[in-house]
Amino acid sequence: MMANTPFKLARRAAAMNPSAIREILKLTERPGVISFAGGLPSPQTFPVEAMREACARVLRDAPHEALQYASSEGLPPLRDWVAGALAKQGIHVGAEQVLVTTGSQQGLDLLAKVLIDPASTVLVETPTYLGALQAFATMEPRFTGVPGDDDGPDVEAMAAAVQSTGVDARFFYLLPNFQNPTGCSISERRRAALAECAARIGLPLVEDNPYGDLWFECPPPPSLAARNPEGVAYLGSFSKVLAPGLRLGYLVAPRTLIPKLLQAKQAADLHTPGFNQRVALEVVRNGFLDTHVPTIRALYRSQRDAMLAALERHMPPGTHWNRPSGGMFLWVRLPTGLSATKLLPLAAVRGVAFVPGAPFFAVAPQQDRMRLSFVNANAEQIETGIAALGQVIRELQEKLA
Amino acid sequence: MMANTPFKLARRAAAMNPSAIREILKLTERPGVISFAGGLPSPQTFPVEAMREACARVLRDAPHEALQYASSEGLPPLRDWVAGALAKQGIHVGAEQVLVTTGSQQGLDLLAKVLIDPASTVLVETPTYLGALQAFATMEPRFTGVPGDDDGPDVEAMAAAVQSTGVDARFFYLLPNFQNPTGCSISERRRAALAECAARIGLPLVEDNPYGDLWFECPPPPSLAARNPEGVAYLGSFSKVLAPGLRLGYLVAPRTLIPKLLQAKQAADLHTPGFNQRVALEVVRNGFLDTHVPTIRALYRSQRDAMLAALERHMPPGTHWNRPSGGMFLWVRLPTGLSATKLLPLAAVRGVAFVPGAPFFAVAPQQDRMRLSFVNANAEQIETGIAALGQVIRELQEKLA
Repeated sequence: MMANTPFKLARRAAAMNPSAIREILKLTERPGVISFAGGLPSPQTFPVEAMREACARVLRDAPHEALQYASSEGLPPLRDWVAGALAKQGIHVGAEQVLVTTGSQQGLDLLAKVLIDPASTVLVETPTYLGALQAFATMEPRFTGVPGDDDGPDVEAMAAAVQSTGVDARFFYLLPNFQNPTGCSISERRRAALAECAARIGLPLVEDNPYGDLWFECPPPPSLAARNPEGVAYLGSFSKVLAPGLRLGYLVAPRTLIPKLLQAKQAADLHTPGFNQRVALEVVRNGFLDTHVPTIRALYRSQRDAMLAALERHMPPGTHWNRPSGGMFLWVRLPTGLSATKLLPLAAVRGVAFVPGAPFFAVAPQQDRMRLSFVNANAEQIETGIAALGQVIRELQEKLA
Repeated sequence: MMANTPFKLARRAAAMNPSAIREILKLTERPGVISFAGGLPSPQTFPVEAMREACARVLRDAPHEALQYASSEGLPPLRDWVAGALAKQGIHVGAEQVLVTTGSQQGLDLLAKVLIDPASTVLVETPTYLGALQAFATMEPRFTGVPGDDDGPDVEAMAAAVQSTGVDARFFYLLPNFQNPTGCSISERRRAALAECAARIGLPLVEDNPYGDLWFECPPPPSLAARNPEGVAYLGSFSKVLAPGLRLGYLVAPRTLIPKLLQAKQAADLHTPGFNQRVALEVVRNGFLDTHVPTIRALYRSQRDAMLAALERHMPPGTHWNRPSGGMFLWVRLPTGLSATKLLPLAAVRGVAFVPGAPFFAVAPQQDRMRLSFVNANAEQIETGIAALGQVIRELQEKLA
């Protein structure tokens, strides 16, 4: 029982904790702060005019259908559109394997409910997407981190994690393209090896792909789902190519899993807003993304280049970073001995924000990492912000010297 | 492991089963069928013109904010609006106790996650809302049905259920106003007794109120939450007064519960679509519902009256029904020995649909009950449909005689 109230918390509520990041980030939401922190797409990329027309059209042509309750599976023509878009990427699934979700975050919640028993094991990359850790943690798994290198997670470490005595591994969760938080991608060769090994040892994969369309130089290698559709659940999103405020994503799964996922979906929120599904379909149905997404890629690429150049100019020796070939994030390793969590309040005072890397690790957090988003600042702000960040790092170094 | 796939289901997935109702109702979705089945509001009540203006205004005045990620708690002015609307009903809570949810169904999911341990007990009315049973069942409670009479659930039965040896009761879930499925309401006297007893024995209440605004003669008595705010979690919805296709509801809870509910919300779908929240706020902010809701009441009251008159004309002796004073549903008891589940396919053949009552019982289903929605048919269809239903009941009686 809690103070002043008869309510008693379920055991799993102990795994739910206010995100440390969220609390810190409140400090950095002041006007004037240059933020490399949020995982927000650039609002410049939102197709406002197309949305305006689509809303008007939906409310003119099918207002009652759009505003009424709808099916838990999702709007049939939107499911067809998703299946068609996936086929072009080599993922051949029927529209009946596509569930429309209230953002791809909900897909993680549904998979957690249907697949995770308390004390079973979920394998994750180190680091991985914080929101997935939160969704999975609610169902009380044990997390096992799979270490990796520049090509992606280590195949032998994955197999060893599954085969160690007493492990009841339910799936390995991966973001193969321009990962959140690192911006790293898994190479073609490593994808092939991961898919082959997972199929051989009977390890299901959960492939999360919100950033795959945001490539800068060339499209990413084929997805894991394309290699073994029966062994992979795949999550996609409209948040980065259209707008996150619609909360529209999709979950693709083997046919045998669909009935349980659908029940979980129905119990979770009955269905994803039908109005939003119709508006999104109106926007995308005639090839809109074919011309729209390249404009997002061009913008984000120029911002990545600005940040790489600024880092080169302003970071003190001993600072390392990667060169992501797509997505929204860049991953920085601070000089030896520096903690990104300790750096953040100092940076906030100087008017610049980022996200410390530690919370993205399910196990053994690395304190010297930070995530920088390059998509919510222009070239000038990137220059100013990175210069300030370099200065703060130097100051922290001197303080500790 | 399932056929052809390495995925293995969590234990809780066993509690997720395709709704029997849903499967049967597919038969009745043919064009031309007169449906008393669905829990859908009448699309005539959707404020299409107001929605059209609101969408245009939101996309003109704040397009980037509306389409961007937003806070998990909900849009601050919408939370303020809800707190203000509740205060007028005697529920005095701070806006920080209001979480905007993706339909009130999501509020049930969040409460289940935060409050229900496997094998703990959840008390429910007999019968109760099927979607709540589905949301709760995912977290594997034991259900205890609390019997009642025309005034509502029996207070002594509630207390006895909690005090029986070995019961770890987490809450009692109730729909005090024009309940789904029965259309019944809890009397003022019974509300007072339930609230007093629950507070005394330390039993939390979950009060679900999607239909409270839809009264026909006079407003319902004050809510349970108004009587004991620290002991009640309260769910509200925009689905019946605005439109369900927006998927907008809210969950009001004691302050001590909010942080965990917020974490669960964040993990579930990050946030409810910000676009929808802004559109709904635009529609309701200047007193729109004060003139709009009375038009819904008048329509539904005339439909209820048409159904009551048709039942009087067409039902064979031995059929009983209630006279709901609000909401969307009416509850029928068939003549002795008849099963509503067996009646349904016969009715469907004659072009009329309803929902059998059995699935609404968590324990000990009553096979002779059925739910009739009166809000999705006009007076003529009600007359035709009820006449057909009366005929089919007579035929089933003769077959069994």
